[in-house]
Amino acid sequence: MESKRRRKNPEAMPKKGILERLRDGVVIGDGGFVFQLEKRGYVKAGPWTPEATCENPEAVRQLHRDFLRAGSDVMQALTFYASDTKLENRGNKAGQTFSGKAINAAACKLAREVADEGDALVAGGLSQTPTYLSGRSKKEVQVDFQKQVQVFVDNNLDFLICEYFEHVEEIEWAIEVCKATGKPVAATMCIGPEGDMHGVSAGDCAVRMVKAGADIVGVNCHFDPSISLHTVRLMKEGLERAGLKAFLMSQPLAYHTPDAGKQGFIDLPEFPFALESRICTRWDIQKYAREAYELGVRYIGGCCGFEPYHVRAISEELMKERGKKSMATEKHDLWGGGLLMHTKPWVRARASREYWENLRPGSGRPYCPSMSQPDEWGVTAGSQVLMQHSEATTEKEFKELANHAVKTRSRK
Amino acid sequence: MESKRRRKNPEAMPKKGILERLRDGVVIGDGGFVFQLEKRGYVKAGPWTPEATCENPEAVRQLHRDFLRAGSDVMQALTFYASDTKLENRGNKAGQTFSGKAINAAACKLAREVADEGDALVAGGLSQTPTYLSGRSKKEVQVDFQKQVQVFVDNNLDFLICEYFEHVEEIEWAIEVCKATGKPVAATMCIGPEGDMHGVSAGDCAVRMVKAGADIVGVNCHFDPSISLHTVRLMKEGLERAGLKAFLMSQPLAYHTPDAGKQGFIDLPEFPFALESRICTRWDIQKYAREAYELGVRYIGGCCGFEPYHVRAISEELMKERGKKSMATEKHDLWGGGLLMHTKPWVRARASREYWENLRPGSGRPYCPSMSQPDEWGVTAGSQVLMQHSEATTEKEFKELANHAVKTRSRK
Amino acid sequence: MESKRRRKNPEAMPKKGILERLRDGVVIGDGGFVFQLEKRGYVKAGPWTPEATCENPEAVRQLHRDFLRAGSDVMQALTFYASDTKLENRGNKAGQTFSGKAINAAACKLAREVADEGDALVAGGLSQTPTYLSGRSKKEVQVDFQKQVQVFVDNNLDFLICEYFEHVEEIEWAIEVCKATGKPVAATMCIGPEGDMHGVSAGDCAVRMVKAGADIVGVNCHFDPSISLHTVRLMKEGLERAGLKAFLMSQPLAYHTPDAGKQGFIDLPEFPFALESRICTRWDIQKYAREAYELGVRYIGGCCGFEPYHVRAISEELMKERGKKSMATEKHDLWGGGLLMHTKPWVRARASREYWENLRPGSGRPYCPSMSQPDEWGVTAGSQVLMQHSEATTEKEFKELANHAVKTRSRK
Amino acid sequence: MESKRRRKNPEAMPKKGILERLRDGVVIGDGGFVFQLEKRGYVKAGPWTPEATCENPEAVRQLHRDFLRAGSDVMQALTFYASDTKLENRGNKAGQTFSGKAINAAACKLAREVADEGDALVAGGLSQTPTYLSGRSKKEVQVDFQKQVQVFVDNNLDFLICEYFEHVEEIEWAIEVCKATGKPVAATMCIGPEGDMHGVSAGDCAVRMVKAGADIVGVNCHFDPSISLHTVRLMKEGLERAGLKAFLMSQPLAYHTPDAGKQGFIDLPEFPFALESRICTRWDIQKYAREAYELGVRYIGGCCGFEPYHVRAISEELMKERGKKSMATEKHDLWGGGLLMHTKPWVRARASREYWENLRPGSGRPYCPSMSQPDEWGVTAGSQVLMQHSEATTEKEFKELANHAVKTRSRK
Repeated sequence: MESKRRRKNPEAMPKKGILERLRDGVVIGDGGFVFQLEKRGYVKAGPWTPEATCENPEAVRQLHRDFLRAGSDVMQALTFYASDTKLENRGNKAGQTFSGKAINAAACKLAREVADEGDALVAGGLSQTPTYLSGRSKKEVQVDFQKQVQVFVDNNLDFLICEYFEHVEEIEWAIEVCKATGKPVAATMCIGPEGDMHGVSAGDCAVRMVKAGADIVGVNCHFDPSISLHTVRLMKEGLERAGLKAFLMSQPLAYHTPDAGKQGFIDLPEFPFALESRICTRWDIQKYAREAYELGVRYIGGCCGFEPYHVRAISEELMKERGKKSMATEKHDLWGGGLLMHTKPWVRARASREYWENLRPGSGRPYCPSMSQPDEWGVTAGSQVLMQHSEATTEKEFKELANHAVKTRSRK
Repeated sequence: MESKRRRKNPEAMPKKGILERLRDGVVIGDGGFVFQLEKRGYVKAGPWTPEATCENPEAVRQLHRDFLRAGSDVMQALTFYASDTKLENRGNKAGQTFSGKAINAAACKLAREVADEGDALVAGGLSQTPTYLSGRSKKEVQVDFQKQVQVFVDNNLDFLICEYFEHVEEIEWAIEVCKATGKPVAATMCIGPEGDMHGVSAGDCAVRMVKAGADIVGVNCHFDPSISLHTVRLMKEGLERAGLKAFLMSQPLAYHTPDAGKQGFIDLPEFPFALESRICTRWDIQKYAREAYELGVRYIGGCCGFEPYHVRAISEELMKERGKKSMATEKHDLWGGGLLMHTKPWVRARASREYWENLRPGSGRPYCPSMSQPDEWGVTAGSQVLMQHSEATTEKEFKELANHAVKTRSRK
Repeated sequence: MESKRRRKNPEAMPKKGILERLRDGVVIGDGGFVFQLEKRGYVKAGPWTPEATCENPEAVRQLHRDFLRAGSDVMQALTFYASDTKLENRGNKAGQTFSGKAINAAACKLAREVADEGDALVAGGLSQTPTYLSGRSKKEVQVDFQKQVQVFVDNNLDFLICEYFEHVEEIEWAIEVCKATGKPVAATMCIGPEGDMHGVSAGDCAVRMVKAGADIVGVNCHFDPSISLHTVRLMKEGLERAGLKAFLMSQPLAYHTPDAGKQGFIDLPEFPFALESRICTRWDIQKYAREAYELGVRYIGGCCGFEPYHVRAISEELMKERGKKSMATEKHDLWGGGLLMHTKPWVRARASREYWENLRPGSGRPYCPSMSQPDEWGVTAGSQVLMQHSEATTEKEFKELANHAVKTRSRK
Repeated sequence: MESKRRRKNPEAMPKKGILERLRDGVVIGDGGFVFQLEKRGYVKAGPWTPEATCENPEAVRQLHRDFLRAGSDVMQALTFYASDTKLENRGNKAGQTFSGKAINAAACKLAREVADEGDALVAGGLSQTPTYLSGRSKKEVQVDFQKQVQVFVDNNLDFLICEYFEHVEEIEWAIEVCKATGKPVAATMCIGPEGDMHGVSAGDCAVRMVKAGADIVGVNCHFDPSISLHTVRLMKEGLERAGLKAFLMSQPLAYHTPDAGKQGFIDLPEFPFALESRICTRWDIQKYAREAYELGVRYIGGCCGFEPYHVRAISEELMKERGKKSMATEKHDLWGGGLLMHTKPWVRARASREYWENLRPGSGRPYCPSMSQPDEWGVTAGSQVLMQHSEATTEKEFKELANHAVKTRSRK
């Protein structure tokens, strides 16, 4: 069965590159690997490091395949946080068994394998480093990046993504390293409309990323689709004012975060183990896909919380624009059409676009609020409290943190 | 890697049976296959039939493996709704490609394969039939059951489960067929505290299931953990009054349904495509596992909405009672302990049981209510409107249904 | 101006009595005096005693007038909790300045004065006593009642109401005392569908009240309109089973209490200073009036939270049945019709029944839940902790109570 | 009794003026007359005109007295919308019975009468006119104002308030007319942080009001306390930038309006008949009073929704700063202290500041959202659709409006 998936002779017909695809139409990204693999049991929340590429390759492969079937045009190698420094940060023992290099190489191989079951490209990714947060020099930070990028080059990935950066300065350093490879570079920050953690506006962040060499810019993670598109709009306006051009990209959360503060969903009290009631429906995501497309975003994907069915929702909303449907749509008649086959007549009555677009879903949680007060510690890169180290958090440290948190909350 | 998972010589050391395990401790079930595979892109909502066992075996195998790692002691073969009548009901075309027999046989093989990667048992399941809902005779309904059971016997499954029945009469007929095989029989109805659809109380349902031959009785699906345990308590009391003994079992939804009516979550307007905000957190499930255990339930699992991490939560709550932990717990320090490795200090401050147990999560949906008004059509087995057929629903029929639904709602 | 209100010669045309009115149609009660006067600044929350009849007669008179204009057919003299024991309970100093007798006499005079500005009757009321809660004898309790009733007789009130009793035994004692006067007696308990605090069912409470001599029975206070009518329905069924006849009466809260436990809104954490978000709209009350009427309730009024405009809503809903409208309806075109005179066109667009009946009002409180966990101390008459005394609560006692409350809540 | 309220010889000891009081401390305003009198049954929602000063003087007098007792230092004569044009607008018949002059004169008399029962001042008020909204000239609009101001001068009121203006241009015209009398002038707009309806920022509005002659500036109505203080902060900053000085004033709604758009609560679907669940608690108002005081606001009052107990909450929060307490505080032990006299021990346990400050009140409305989508018609002064006339709205006009409203909403 699996052999049927593989293209007979992939070398014979080289795939169209990312920039060409963006020029000609819309590219669908994938979803949130670490969150989804955490729920499936292969990634640990807290460190969020991706040693699963070595430990449980079949689980990573299957998730790639789920996204490929859902319509993803890009398989992003699972290299999130796979720097040696992060693998050994604060008591994380992943780095003792596997080197960053091994994890990254396995990630590249898995992504390529599944990408070649379809017409997808493979991307390698860099993200923000403990090194930068601890206040180290540009040179030290770029050494971290260079080590990862080398693996991507060795595995001949199709393009590179710098993502999940809170400080524009750090992503500029990452873009530089990527740009030097000659491969196309996408760059997305995890910021909201208020801009980066050092006070640089979203529009200026976009301008600086393009000037540093990014071909594609936008946002990922930290905020819900609606807030993320607001930020992309500010970036678009910033680029227009500066007379610059770049493709736009958005890979938001699949969690509703109207109450998030400047640092996004990390600061919400529900992060990361009680976000369930915030999960977007497939209809929320279709709305997002339409709004993104109308804003001019051409690389439309998702981040934490995005499951395969969310990506399928993007592909279904843009089916006409793309002139094709995803494999998984075989298992999903549009707008709930499959319900026409349901046994109960009142469920069949729900098989319509009008029904699902107008529904305001109940939470089933009458003792819970609709919004939460985010933690607001206002800490950013260079702060002493963000100095990273390999020792685990002690109980004493934890108690101090917990006390501080209680005090912060009760001041509200 | 995968070869390491298989037990060298499984025949050499026969596994302990289900009744023996229940006598000695607590057995953890698995989660909701069709809902999870729908999100992963392999099952169609509406018919909910499991042809994926033939079409995408690796996806089914991987989900079994996720649950095995999470702590499931039972691999339930994916045979839900795999009767020939259901595979061809109301325009479902699954039955044209694969016979019920082929789907069931593949399901048994996949479940056994993964079960033998650990110490799990394999169960085959029967569920309610269109035949019964259409008002056919006991004989006709039992023919449907017999065809499925034969496959389970041929594949030498460890025990049988009759589940997802709304009418005690039909589950009695199913239990009889199962009992005749000589294998242990578990029987769970998808009912709430109000009893079955024909007005038989939960306590009486339990009594009748035991008298029909069930070794294990309880509820599955349709209601949230708290309501489900309430129903199990009523069953327990019914058995005590009747002087009967049986093991208790619960496999509820992982959705909060305080507002559900008699027919459970099917009638909630969010079913099945907007249930996200109702999904239970892992902490909700730990609470459920504890309460189930204290009530005397010894077969504790889940149904629709239960993902691998929910099953892991059961295994973590009962770690002491079971004297072991699940494989996936390697990737999950208890009570959020992994957060001690998080970069941001205020997230590290959340690494405690006290924090997560007391959190009332916000929905991020300020324009949505906390509860919904369920549809209440009051239709049950034998009603003309439930007569099943192989023709697809026509547009005219759909319009009539939709109009009726609107009227029903506005009467409230 | 005020003189115009008074009937020229009231003696010339004696008013129709309460029982006659109930036989011929529907009688509208008044609203919640102590809660409304607390907001206006004349009654203290906690003791809730009505010394305002002596201290600020013009405020009490004006509230009577507001209700008369709103459509009340009965002016209930403000004698709630006006027993000498209550006036000096737990540090209350009201009793040092005014005797219970003086307060009651002033109340009668004020009620009569306003009643004669229209066609209203005047009722005197008894409610549950600290004496009973403290576990004293029937004789002692009836002495308390007798003292109040004597004032009502001296002032020749039209009928008597025993209301706000949690124990059917105590209300039987009160009814006996009232019955002896020869005046018609109404009797309402502040109970929900679970029955009285000693476990007597709602149906049996109704039967016992009628047997003790009540002409009119029902419920008041403690629960919202919907729950209260549920209780009245149980009472009605109880009377039917017993072959008894009586008029039905309901005077519920104007607060939504879906989450209240057995003791009603007293146990909700919001009682009494944060109930605002639970206040019923006028449309909620119109719905209540219709449902009450259809159930057969003929004495329809309100209790705590009912303001004049809520009573007007009853009179407007039943305008046709009553063949008249209230004075205050001059200032209230039906179903929001007055909005047709609003400046802004989109507000004029709201002038319809359809609009207001279908609106689901937002709370403007996204950080608050929709339901609360009630305190559940399970304490009732005869419990040591309910022993009443004239000393004020000490700080030590308060701390013990507060600690106990915190512990009770965190056990949930 | 009432005679005791009057000061023996008011002329003998002239009261301190408003500016002097503001210089020396904090002045407490009153609450929302038309909303409160609508609930009591004396004002019609829609036109909101104050003919009650002639029709039911005792009701107006009593409400003044309630506010005086609650701590109001200012009795604002009930002259809201009492212009001849408004009294005959869109089918309002109030103007046929009473002239604007008569209504205003009666209002002045009633306010003075109650003010002299204490040490309160009397203010006369102007508000926005249909004349301006219809696009008429400055001269025509000022004629409207002049007619009202003449009554205030004839009755020798203590100072004048221009309030409830959405356009800074119109309030400038009003201030000019008031300033010419030589009396102190307060000026508050019903705007939020986005500024006036023609796009003038809040800061610039403040500057223009002061330049036009206002001694006191700020906001009233349309938004909740928190949003209103945000706007006042913007005004304060605008004045500081311009080097201007004025006293600051805030009289917000007592309704939570986090979801309001630019035109405030008028646009919320709940306006005006389903705002109950948005009503602020007394604790919300204490918080408001503290924040207002800390911002430097010295005239602190309320508008629609403010009831006497809300004003009392201001006076209690600022008891120390003012060196006195309100009369109604006799009936309100601070921070729920009166509950120490409650019969039930668990209610006594709520008698503390900590309890009430931390409570997040439940709405009791699980089927309702926490926020609503405001109507957004974007219509402002000069728009054809705001042209006012004396004819009533026809049914045809209403249907067009209602259809338009439905379309506007479904576009969201």
